[in-house]
Amino acid sequence: MPYVTVKMLEGRTDEQKRALVEKVTEAVVETTGASKEKVAVIIEEMSKNNYGVAGKRISDQ
Amino acid sequence: MPYVTVKMLEGRTDEQKRALVEKVTEAVVETTGASKEKVAVIIEEMSKNNYGVAGKRISDQ
Amino acid sequence: MPYVTVKMLEGRTDEQKRALVEKVTEAVVETTGASKEKVAVIIEEMSKNNYGVAGKRISDQ
Amino acid sequence: MPYVTVKMLEGRTDEQKRALVEKVTEAVVETTGASKEKVAVIIEEMSKNNYGVAGKRISDQ
Amino acid sequence: MPYVTVKMLEGRTDEQKRALVEKVTEAVVETTGASKEKVAVIIEEMSKNNYGVAGKRISDQ
Amino acid sequence: MPYVTVKMLEGRTDEQKRALVEKVTEAVVETTGASKEKVAVIIEEMSKNNYGVAGKRISDQ
Repeated sequence: MPYVTVKMLEGRTDEQKRALVEKVTEAVVETTGASKEKVAVIIEEMSKNNYGVAGKRISDQ
Repeated sequence: MPYVTVKMLEGRTDEQKRALVEKVTEAVVETTGASKEKVAVIIEEMSKNNYGVAGKRISDQ
Repeated sequence: MPYVTVKMLEGRTDEQKRALVEKVTEAVVETTGASKEKVAVIIEEMSKNNYGVAGKRISDQ
Repeated sequence: MPYVTVKMLEGRTDEQKRALVEKVTEAVVETTGASKEKVAVIIEEMSKNNYGVAGKRISDQ
Repeated sequence: MPYVTVKMLEGRTDEQKRALVEKVTEAVVETTGASKEKVAVIIEEMSKNNYGVAGKRISDQ
Repeated sequence: MPYVTVKMLEGRTDEQKRALVEKVTEAVVETTGASKEKVAVIIEEMSKNNYGVAGKRISDQ
């Protein structure tokens, strides 16, 4: 703990995900004082069929 | 914001999901006064192997 | 199931919440074919201190 | 209700998941007094590419 | 990891919550092979005003 | 979108939360290419009574 969940559209590269986990962990450690070993980051990828804004799915826009 | 997450068993058609995002957004706008552009709807589909009620997975019933 | 979670800023009236649960349930039943008795709606209220967009908390804007 | 979500790395066997739903339901019923029929258990499997601790994804360790 | 979230109506006693964390952890360890030190349990309490089934909040039933 | 949720024990200062939202947003923008205006950060604070690791609540340790 802290547990960080990042929900975003699928499609980022492996390298982007690697960097995301690293940099978000740094940000959490720097600002909350949590120890690095305790910070967990979970990436949850959304498909365009299953995510919508303003009443429309991204796949329907 | 508001952010709406709908967790349901996988298997709905594309058309059902389109309508779900549309109608849920309408319901949220109508009742909370939120502006339509700000409402996000995320559909999270569960497989029958990973969801159970009363101690039994749907796949085991 | 389906389970619907609505995350929104705190401050809506009791009446708005009553209507939100009712109308969101109707929207889910109408579009997914789920039976009304099975639909659960959970409202999660966020405080302005704990929610931010574009790098700024709502309480700091 | 109660709704139990178990987030864990993907890779458990079907038998492990069956037992997990059963035993977690028993634990919830025994300790909270909830009725068994009302307890839902949702398993959310994480891939090693999308989960990291201490700034590193499991897939990068 | 695994991370277990239990969403339930507020009102359980401190003793019930103590036992819930203990027994759910045991159930997860026993069935998934996860090590006890790694299992986290998070209790999320819902108020009757913010939770509804079949279109009605528990507070309105 | 992306939507970031940070679950952590309650008790951080207002200033820590301000910095957390700012720095996490920067980390997400830098590594995923998302536009800053679209990134939402939600802080969910857990009480020691409702959070446990290794079978014991933090309040019981």
